[in-house]
Amino acid sequence: MCTHHKIQQTTAQAETVYVSELDTPCLLLDESRMNRNIGRLHSRLAMKNVVFRPHLKTAKSIEIARRMVAGPNGPATVSTLNEAEAFAGAGITDITYAVGISPQKLPRVQALLRQGINMTVLLDSTEQADAVAAASTLDVPIPALIELDCDGHRSGVHCDDQERLLAIASSLHASASLRGVLTHAGESYTATSRHALLAAAENERASAIRAAEILRHAGYRCPVVSIGSTPTAMFAENYDGITEVRAGVFAFFDLVQAGIGVCTPDDIAVSVLATVIGHQREKDWTIIDAGWAALSSDRGTESQRVDQGYGLVCDLEGNLIDGLFVTNVNQEHGIIARRTDFGGHIPDLPYGAKVRILPIHACATVEQHSAYNVIGSDKQTIAGQWTRLKGW
Amino acid sequence: MCTHHKIQQTTAQAETVYVSELDTPCLLLDESRMNRNIGRLHSRLAMKNVVFRPHLKTAKSIEIARRMVAGPNGPATVSTLNEAEAFAGAGITDITYAVGISPQKLPRVQALLRQGINMTVLLDSTEQADAVAAASTLDVPIPALIELDCDGHRSGVHCDDQERLLAIASSLHASASLRGVLTHAGESYTATSRHALLAAAENERASAIRAAEILRHAGYRCPVVSIGSTPTAMFAENYDGITEVRAGVFAFFDLVQAGIGVCTPDDIAVSVLATVIGHQREKDWTIIDAGWAALSSDRGTESQRVDQGYGLVCDLEGNLIDGLFVTNVNQEHGIIARRTDFGGHIPDLPYGAKVRILPIHACATVEQHSAYNVIGSDKQTIAGQWTRLKGW
Repeated sequence: MCTHHKIQQTTAQAETVYVSELDTPCLLLDESRMNRNIGRLHSRLAMKNVVFRPHLKTAKSIEIARRMVAGPNGPATVSTLNEAEAFAGAGITDITYAVGISPQKLPRVQALLRQGINMTVLLDSTEQADAVAAASTLDVPIPALIELDCDGHRSGVHCDDQERLLAIASSLHASASLRGVLTHAGESYTATSRHALLAAAENERASAIRAAEILRHAGYRCPVVSIGSTPTAMFAENYDGITEVRAGVFAFFDLVQAGIGVCTPDDIAVSVLATVIGHQREKDWTIIDAGWAALSSDRGTESQRVDQGYGLVCDLEGNLIDGLFVTNVNQEHGIIARRTDFGGHIPDLPYGAKVRILPIHACATVEQHSAYNVIGSDKQTIAGQWTRLKGW
Repeated sequence: MCTHHKIQQTTAQAETVYVSELDTPCLLLDESRMNRNIGRLHSRLAMKNVVFRPHLKTAKSIEIARRMVAGPNGPATVSTLNEAEAFAGAGITDITYAVGISPQKLPRVQALLRQGINMTVLLDSTEQADAVAAASTLDVPIPALIELDCDGHRSGVHCDDQERLLAIASSLHASASLRGVLTHAGESYTATSRHALLAAAENERASAIRAAEILRHAGYRCPVVSIGSTPTAMFAENYDGITEVRAGVFAFFDLVQAGIGVCTPDDIAVSVLATVIGHQREKDWTIIDAGWAALSSDRGTESQRVDQGYGLVCDLEGNLIDGLFVTNVNQEHGIIARRTDFGGHIPDLPYGAKVRILPIHACATVEQHSAYNVIGSDKQTIAGQWTRLKGW
């Protein structure tokens, strides 16, 4: 029987499925590592006395969302309206949709608001503010945050651009509802030291507060001052003036985060199970049945001090095998090679052996899969299969 | 009503959905371009008198597979058993699974064979051959091709490695069924001239024939000599000794293929529809709601003469806008920038405007989506929605 069907029956018949039996490639989730990661950031932010609004775009799973949010209703952040609709259906009702709102999506936002979901949209232009104001009604004004650009990485109003900030606030004021400001320290992903991370975090905080002060000085209420990225959330010391923090990948972590110094490979909670299907012995290559279709093409560590290729290699139990990495991928093939600077012993990976590949960028790797195979507390069997949301 | 539901109703109620109405991001398929691409390669290979075994891994759609294969039963190539099972269910019964077989997958192969599907597996080691022989039975021997490495890019036995070729043939001989040899000219993807493409194609052909001759000389039958990649299939002149050709991305084409010179951007049949959600005017950036989740992170043109970033930009009607490309992506954001060397006029892309992004690597881009939105012959409305297969 195919393992997929066995897993579906586990609830009813409690038939045991071992990790080693799973069809490959597939996505594994080490729930105990994930719970530890979630607990660590929750404790950290609770001590700092700041609200945590986890980003659910990485996990896209109702079961994981329930473990990430502080209370049954949230708060939460999402990157698609599909997530918002699914999580709202699961009772998470305090949701910020943190991608600049497009005019065509406003009817779906309105529908969620009319269902009683506390939805907030994001915008950084008067055109957007006008569209949001036009889609608002007297009984259902659409709540909006102004997106700030604190370090030049993407969207957002420059934090000191008083004219644009006030023009947006004025456009919203007519009929929508200005909730506050939101920024994301994209720069923190390029940090290479604790000092640089603290600087990125402090810049994120100070920028958001400057923009909030511009709005307040002009007479606008600005109850929300939202900041966040996993690196800054894990390192920031000072949250004065900040009302909430966002982070998403912290629940899983990945090799990009390890390269920044925010976690170690032992914290990484997701991996792709793969099978050795061949070798090119003269090149010291091991070929596995996980290519970019299972791992993603993300090359996020290419610009870091250590390039981890398409992922690091662990044995079936999840122990890192030093000296190996996935050096190249095709759609359904991965090539594991030996690091040229590694002189130690590397165990043989024979035909049919199972390995676990740690992700470069967890958001991208898990996006390639339709479900998480959740490893039980015995580390050897599958405790359940959790579906991932897809689409927009 | 959400456009998704409108499309589902089109069959019953013939309600018109315009491309401009679709929720973004989403995947568009220009069926007339695809049909032209398919027709061109079919004609070419028919003139060369060689069997075409299209690779269905790019499209992963039953409707598209039916247009790609020569007859109702195939032949076809797949990269996952999930594809094999789905296409077999749709009547395509002559299938080569062109990824090295893992031992765990043999029961699914056996099940397909017992259903009457003409399944062939691929292998390049005696360990695999032994596993395939062990899983074969007297009434159901598993047909296998020996994978050849003609240019050092991935798996496969070196075409001149007589010892390994004969050892594999001998292992199979016991109870499985040796069908022949198969190779893939990975090197053709690095070609930068017609001369280099012809050389890659001729090397692919000659290498496969050398290996086949080694087997035949030792007394083994070798009825299948299979070669193929889109670049070599589009350019090869000489097919002497070759029994079948494989190619997959030719149906859609993409910017990697255009960079090689195998197609022009006007041949590219798939694109991602996106909406402009903002601007950073001082940097000449336009922000769209399609990031790597919709486009993929594939950077396949990075090593080509012209780096097309994460894709080229067309207007809603599909006309290329010279001077623009997607320079960076986050999960749900794409940044369109102006090429620094472009001096011409670029039309404004206002907030809410729709654009179509041509893929860097079509296989990777379409993999991010669950369905194709098929553009009708009027170029403005959606004629249907074709589901993509997922998983392994």
